[in-house]
Amino acid sequence: MSNAYDKANELGRVLKESDEFKQLAELHNKVNEDEQAKQMLDNFRGIQMELQQKQMQGMELSEEEIQKAQSVFELVQQHELISKLMEAEQRMSQLIGDINKIIAEPLEELYGMGQE
Amino acid sequence: MSNAYDKANELGRVLKESDEFKQLAELHNKVNEDEQAKQMLDNFRGIQMELQQKQMQGMELSEEEIQKAQSVFELVQQHELISKLMEAEQRMSQLIGDINKIIAEPLEELYGMGQE
Ligand SMILES: [Ca+2]
Ligand SMILES: [Ca+2]
Repeated sequence: MSNAYDKANELGRVLKESDEFKQLAELHNKVNEDEQAKQMLDNFRGIQMELQQKQMQGMELSEEEIQKAQSVFELVQQHELISKLMEAEQRMSQLIGDINKIIAEPLEELYGMGQE
Repeated sequence: MSNAYDKANELGRVLKESDEFKQLAELHNKVNEDEQAKQMLDNFRGIQMELQQKQMQGMELSEEEIQKAQSVFELVQQHELISKLMEAEQRMSQLIGDINKIIAEPLEELYGMGQE
């Protein structure tokens, strides 16, 4: 068991030293230092979170809400720094997702097996 | 990056060879071979999932639903094999949770920092 924690710590260190993480951290800090970019991104994230919560609660989104979210998304994508940050977040999230799949594989096998 | 995948694979192997996983797999297989235990557990899981989905959709649970879930839970806990399996699942889930926290630590630090 302590062995698993050791390996997890090694993995954490490797992730922290990865190009993916370094790029993400750099872009994150740049956006945080740019008041206008930060406001734009916070605004977008706020809208995104609001709509996700509605969907999770089984509520349907209105035409207007979907269009508003789309236009704010197009706006932030035109901001080079923000769009680079969002790409870096996506790469990191892909990497973390892949890692979680690898780690959960034995459990997947176990719980996939017993069901027919 | 490939380095992170290598470490994740190492971690996956260590987990698969851990006492926690081996105990879980053994109990899982025993329950699956015991038709009565399996039915009892499937029934409990079905009820649990139904109520979780309701809660996630923001619906309130009735007194009756809560009491039913509680009595089924007490029933499965009295079944030695099932209660052992559930304990093993909890230990594994604790381990995976700890590992996820360790891996996500650099991201937590990064995203905790920019917010005030
Ligand atoms: Ca700030
Ligand atoms: Ca079976």
